[in-house]
Amino acid sequence: MATMQTFFKSRWVTPPDGTAELNPAQLAPGFRAAGIACGLKVGGATDVGVLACDSTEVRSALAVTRSAAAAAPVRVCREDCDAGAIRAIAVNSGNANAATGEQGYRDALAMRDAAAEALGVEPRTVAVAETGTIGIPLDIEAVSAGVLEAVASLSTEGGDDFARAIMTTDRAPKRCAVRAGGVTVSAQAKGAGMIEPGFATMLCFMQTDAEVDDPDAALRSALSSSMERITVDGQMSTNDTVVLQATGAAGAPLPEGLLDSVLLQLALEIVADGEGATRVGRVDVRGAADPEEAERVGRAIANSPLVKTALFGRDSNWGRIAQAAGMALAGEEVWELGPDRIQAAELAAEVPEAELSIALGRGEADAHVYFSDLTHDYIRINAEYTT
Amino acid sequence: MATMQTFFKSRWVTPPDGTAELNPAQLAPGFRAAGIACGLKVGGATDVGVLACDSTEVRSALAVTRSAAAAAPVRVCREDCDAGAIRAIAVNSGNANAATGEQGYRDALAMRDAAAEALGVEPRTVAVAETGTIGIPLDIEAVSAGVLEAVASLSTEGGDDFARAIMTTDRAPKRCAVRAGGVTVSAQAKGAGMIEPGFATMLCFMQTDAEVDDPDAALRSALSSSMERITVDGQMSTNDTVVLQATGAAGAPLPEGLLDSVLLQLALEIVADGEGATRVGRVDVRGAADPEEAERVGRAIANSPLVKTALFGRDSNWGRIAQAAGMALAGEEVWELGPDRIQAAELAAEVPEAELSIALGRGEADAHVYFSDLTHDYIRINAEYTT
Repeated sequence: MATMQTFFKSRWVTPPDGTAELNPAQLAPGFRAAGIACGLKVGGATDVGVLACDSTEVRSALAVTRSAAAAAPVRVCREDCDAGAIRAIAVNSGNANAATGEQGYRDALAMRDAAAEALGVEPRTVAVAETGTIGIPLDIEAVSAGVLEAVASLSTEGGDDFARAIMTTDRAPKRCAVRAGGVTVSAQAKGAGMIEPGFATMLCFMQTDAEVDDPDAALRSALSSSMERITVDGQMSTNDTVVLQATGAAGAPLPEGLLDSVLLQLALEIVADGEGATRVGRVDVRGAADPEEAERVGRAIANSPLVKTALFGRDSNWGRIAQAAGMALAGEEVWELGPDRIQAAELAAEVPEAELSIALGRGEADAHVYFSDLTHDYIRINAEYTT
Repeated sequence: MATMQTFFKSRWVTPPDGTAELNPAQLAPGFRAAGIACGLKVGGATDVGVLACDSTEVRSALAVTRSAAAAAPVRVCREDCDAGAIRAIAVNSGNANAATGEQGYRDALAMRDAAAEALGVEPRTVAVAETGTIGIPLDIEAVSAGVLEAVASLSTEGGDDFARAIMTTDRAPKRCAVRAGGVTVSAQAKGAGMIEPGFATMLCFMQTDAEVDDPDAALRSALSSSMERITVDGQMSTNDTVVLQATGAAGAPLPEGLLDSVLLQLALEIVADGEGATRVGRVDVRGAADPEEAERVGRAIANSPLVKTALFGRDSNWGRIAQAAGMALAGEEVWELGPDRIQAAELAAEVPEAELSIALGRGEADAHVYFSDLTHDYIRINAEYTT
């Protein structure tokens, strides 16, 4: 394995001591992946990915969107999947297969079954994920053929193809591979719009050869400090899906903080690659009455179009932060939010990652949220988006 | 009074039978107004307005923002104003005087006192309202001098000057005057950004010669079907202020629905003139489990940047409506939101006012929300806005 000298890109990510960053497209030992084009995307970009674990000893954890309009693949993952024993994942990035009714559900099952049969594994050990336009019938013939082709192409070198095959409006693939404490963690993510908690991502897959006793607890803990702390457009997705797979083959546990670092790096890449985004902000809320209030104020600031356009426009307009906080605390006793309580200078500074803060002086609870700016390109992408 | 044949502009406004629309800048009998430039605005645009009632018999109602970061003039209106006996209103549109601390509060009081002294009325019968940039110290010398000049210029013909003097980023003055049942109602409003309930307006003033027994009830009822049903950017303002004044001189009550029609027309003009807006949408939510749920789903759709850019882009993307509803109902039992439940065709139609609807099938509660589209100009206005 080639160890690179460059480390995590964001100043907000602090990996555990001794973490070595690997080629970001590398997969953890015991995993193979592939990405191919099945024809869903105009222009022939890759749109079907399969990722599989060679080991029958794999343990896994699954987290999906809380949206009441969850897509068919999410419902299949919820209802027809052994979340603790996921061997493989089949993904299409051309069609969300959301709001597609009973036929959509049957199509997602068929996609899962095609992957399971080609891999020779139990259908319930295959997770399915889909992303793309909502409300369009899925071309299941093309997707199933694509899944077979992807299974036939599985390779330990396929991480980059897989990461690219799950992209939609992403400007670049998002993947990360690290080694620490004798174990390897690799991960791939996508997501550029409809990013908001209920772990704010579209799709994210993590593989490791570490021994993970409680994959569900490990996943939820890592999500809480990464994917659940970001927003692009405040829109919860119908298709959010995160899978962690661990083989245990390395015979060593995950070093504390390693998974968190990987997920936070990918989460920040999702924000930085938010639709039309040019900058990332981090707002720290301090002194809230309770954690729920801290979170609410942080979200109100991070999702305010006025704060997001100020981040884009290099305008250190702290008044917009006061306004958003005042809205989040509507009905509370009126109090003064002056410039002594709000740090917003980095809005105007030429830094790619700008830190803001607000001190509410109401209690001891803190929270922070990462967010993207709101730009002309966001409008262009979303006003002109079709298929 | 010249009666015009053209009636309310929006298809969603239905005035009571027999309503005559007057010159929109006209004031109800017994009221005088003025608008002058005191120098707060670069370029010399009018920025101070005063509106006064000649009658000592005036009854009034006041409603202000619920923001916890309410501006100094809002706090003066709450704490130092006889809300039921407002004779006059002094407004500046160059500086919000929000997040300006104790000095801002003293300045708002001084502005009120300057108007009261010039008018020869009790200070507590004068309401103050301010709008503009947040967090900038007020030039109280200039504003006080402007108030004196405006008082000296008060005229029954001053409605247009007043309506223009309260504008900020508005593209046009918003005013309306009607006559029905022997009474006249006139009103002036401003607001183009930070529009969201807690009666979603920046400033709105209404005058009538009708007898209004309970101005507070009349105002709250009219607001609930107008200013509380609109959104531009989902941002509650620090400065929202609405005043209703009624002299009773006409010796007749307000016809049912008249005040509602006037306020709804102005509310829709605020949305149509939302920052960068080119179109107005109305989303009807039907079959929610309860009114709070109906409201929540309606707000989620109306404030979704994806729905708002679809309205701009003429994209009948009903999937984005399903996504927003699914987010608003996160954690609820998953159900199918297909095209049979969502009407979104008017997103793509070349109509200035587009109607959307969603049938949740969960109960009997309904709600509707009016909203603007999200455009390149919104970004331009808010990324380049200073002072």
